[in-house]
Amino acid sequence: MRHLLDTKDLTRAEAIRILDVAEDMADTQQREVKKLPALRGKTVVNLFFEDSTRTRISFEAAAKRLSADVINFSAKGSSVSKGESLQDTAQTLQAMSADAVVIRHAASGAPRTLAASGWISAGVVNAGDGTHAHPTQALLDAYTMRKRRYGADSRGRDLQGFRVTIVGDVLHSRVARSNVWLLQTLGADVTLVAPPTLVPQDVSDWPVQVGFDLDAAVAEGPDAIMMLRIQLERMHAAFFPSEREYARTWGLTPDRLAALPDDTIVMHPGPMNRGLEISSEAADSPRSTVLEQVTNGVSVRMAVLYLLLSGSNENEE
Amino acid sequence: MRHLLDTKDLTRAEAIRILDVAEDMADTQQREVKKLPALRGKTVVNLFFEDSTRTRISFEAAAKRLSADVINFSAKGSSVSKGESLQDTAQTLQAMSADAVVIRHAASGAPRTLAASGWISAGVVNAGDGTHAHPTQALLDAYTMRKRRYGADSRGRDLQGFRVTIVGDVLHSRVARSNVWLLQTLGADVTLVAPPTLVPQDVSDWPVQVGFDLDAAVAEGPDAIMMLRIQLERMHAAFFPSEREYARTWGLTPDRLAALPDDTIVMHPGPMNRGLEISSEAADSPRSTVLEQVTNGVSVRMAVLYLLLSGSNENEE
Amino acid sequence: MRHLLDTKDLTRAEAIRILDVAEDMADTQQREVKKLPALRGKTVVNLFFEDSTRTRISFEAAAKRLSADVINFSAKGSSVSKGESLQDTAQTLQAMSADAVVIRHAASGAPRTLAASGWISAGVVNAGDGTHAHPTQALLDAYTMRKRRYGADSRGRDLQGFRVTIVGDVLHSRVARSNVWLLQTLGADVTLVAPPTLVPQDVSDWPVQVGFDLDAAVAEGPDAIMMLRIQLERMHAAFFPSEREYARTWGLTPDRLAALPDDTIVMHPGPMNRGLEISSEAADSPRSTVLEQVTNGVSVRMAVLYLLLSGSNENEE
Repeated sequence: MRHLLDTKDLTRAEAIRILDVAEDMADTQQREVKKLPALRGKTVVNLFFEDSTRTRISFEAAAKRLSADVINFSAKGSSVSKGESLQDTAQTLQAMSADAVVIRHAASGAPRTLAASGWISAGVVNAGDGTHAHPTQALLDAYTMRKRRYGADSRGRDLQGFRVTIVGDVLHSRVARSNVWLLQTLGADVTLVAPPTLVPQDVSDWPVQVGFDLDAAVAEGPDAIMMLRIQLERMHAAFFPSEREYARTWGLTPDRLAALPDDTIVMHPGPMNRGLEISSEAADSPRSTVLEQVTNGVSVRMAVLYLLLSGSNENEE
Repeated sequence: MRHLLDTKDLTRAEAIRILDVAEDMADTQQREVKKLPALRGKTVVNLFFEDSTRTRISFEAAAKRLSADVINFSAKGSSVSKGESLQDTAQTLQAMSADAVVIRHAASGAPRTLAASGWISAGVVNAGDGTHAHPTQALLDAYTMRKRRYGADSRGRDLQGFRVTIVGDVLHSRVARSNVWLLQTLGADVTLVAPPTLVPQDVSDWPVQVGFDLDAAVAEGPDAIMMLRIQLERMHAAFFPSEREYARTWGLTPDRLAALPDDTIVMHPGPMNRGLEISSEAADSPRSTVLEQVTNGVSVRMAVLYLLLSGSNENEE
Repeated sequence: MRHLLDTKDLTRAEAIRILDVAEDMADTQQREVKKLPALRGKTVVNLFFEDSTRTRISFEAAAKRLSADVINFSAKGSSVSKGESLQDTAQTLQAMSADAVVIRHAASGAPRTLAASGWISAGVVNAGDGTHAHPTQALLDAYTMRKRRYGADSRGRDLQGFRVTIVGDVLHSRVARSNVWLLQTLGADVTLVAPPTLVPQDVSDWPVQVGFDLDAAVAEGPDAIMMLRIQLERMHAAFFPSEREYARTWGLTPDRLAALPDDTIVMHPGPMNRGLEISSEAADSPRSTVLEQVTNGVSVRMAVLYLLLSGSNENEE
């Protein structure tokens, strides 16, 4: 694996390989000394054109536990904000011998541009680009589902027949997109439930079912229900009458939580808007995997960095 | 020790233990290679909801000299500023396996809320909360006093009978509060000298004497005089007529410095407003411990992190 | 070497020593594990009063590859921005046992003030001060020229007779000043080409030739042509009619690139304003050393930190 740009690119074998290595990584995190020497001498640059403290520190923790050096490059206040091109920024990082570039960008496709450009030989990891993709989020979600389904040792397994319902603002969600493609690859069945105004126009090309009634979706008893974050700054009056109305119609309320089967897991990528798309009762219930997702995020990112950086050197050793 | 929230919580034995370990740490900093392996594989998160570069880098240096990984989490630009709750932030750090969270917060009590919540198993270190407490500052101050009093090896000692005068804006000062409680525990005698409008209303419950005449306090010849920082942004005309007037009445001027006994030490938590609460003559005099305080701050924070993080694992090993 | 403040201070032997050690460092960067233990336990503080992500991360990468701990201290939001003096900031870093302070400051002379003050025993590296000096930039430029001239092993060599043309806003350029003095020391011949309004008044005291016709300078066929960055925020209408006009008269256009000898190298300190002082054709041509300069920057900064920090301890070991 040279880069991780989009879950759509991953074969079933590649996806399972990442999840399996993440499981190995998780095991190492149970030890007294969590640090592994695997990436000693490697440099990972967090190139964040958008703020995202949670994702940045997850990658930072992952890289440091593998003994890599981490350099945080926030585009704010940098020459990037003075108009330097992505090309020049990338080439600069390359020239400083960055081994991996973890990129977050407001423009869909920026990570692929970077990887395809030839400007850079470093591995590129997409940490979220526009409304396009957020592959490590989808991988940590799949990891979490697989772990809940198969328990202690789930290596080698996929999600054949696992029924996942994704709820909310699908239109703007890179998390939803990356999940849809990865879940299909792993054999899961995906249903999207969203207000009609928040469904993408091309959804008929996606390998999903679409519904507009959350109570009906709940009644189907999915294996996992994933509540997407509402980004209030993106909501316009046209399709978002009020927070209260949204919570009532599209939120995971205590009533809906109670109507779900006991073994349905409740997922959310965080940060949560408690009381909006998810009630505190749901967020804090034993069925919630919100915190497992965060923990698994570090393991998955360790796996991705490990596969990218040790893989790229295989021929040199 | 699970957390360090407030000097009021510390027994005499606990306080002396921290100071003694800090003295051990200080000894290691004289070596050619200052780095110790003690916290290798541990992750310390600096969770700063308020800017404080000095305190943050002191903790960062302390953690790195113990070989911990440090992750700086500034609440600005993070999901915290988008309304994520302290609970969710804390649980996220927990889920990433933070071993210690060093928290700075504008709200008095936020660190205790965090520690008491059950949201987190990491050790919590209060790096300053509102006007409430700043325990590592008080510990480094006590360390500095003890060292000046007993010299090379002051292990096991307290500050019985040591006379400390704290001067200035006591009302808004977490430094003053944390010092008062720790100094009492260690047996010192504390006098507060402040403008009447900058004395807390509940001061009669504090184990201190209160005076309103700095010249009289200087004439008493204390063992240490601690000048508090004036935070000009908090001063209102009501109790702060002018900087010049403040300096004349409540500042450690060259005349007052000259009136102090030769062995009185001059303390300030920094950053100083030279010419306001402290003259440059006082700040730079051989009696000033301002820089020793900074140096001792790193040793004390090494000790606190060490005691929290090695202590919490004792049962596991 | 105690500090690195200005290339004007360097003897020929000192300059060559830095370049030679940088060449040693570059060799280590070809290894599988790029990390060296040389500065383990040392603390390098990046004290940046002005934003400069590129320079900061170059120093950060250099320090980390030598196993030093790096603490980034941005003056924004710190007590510095609340009026703390340079003296108090410096003494605080000293008291925290910083071994080297890499300082970037808007005021010409701030690094020398810091080094000469006695406030600090740490080594001081000037990472750019006002319009005065940027010595590591000049050293990496000289390194790049020497390497292009002598190839694989250029240790011990100088730049005797090497003809360098520096073009653009010399008036505001610390890069130009530092290059001029270092290139003289190394025996190169320097020509400045600039709009008359962007030539410093004291240029007659500099060891350079001055021209006002870029086409004539190109026709002379220099060994290196260095295009300075235009900082648009500093340009006033008086001497800067329009970007298009500037590019036409003072930019390295494709035509001028074609008119240069095949072995003339094209240099730029970055970040580039493509289409303004340099065309993309020139920036991306095989004659361009823009990216080599970035790579060499890490090696040169490793060398400087190594010489400062291991040198300062020579008597102690």
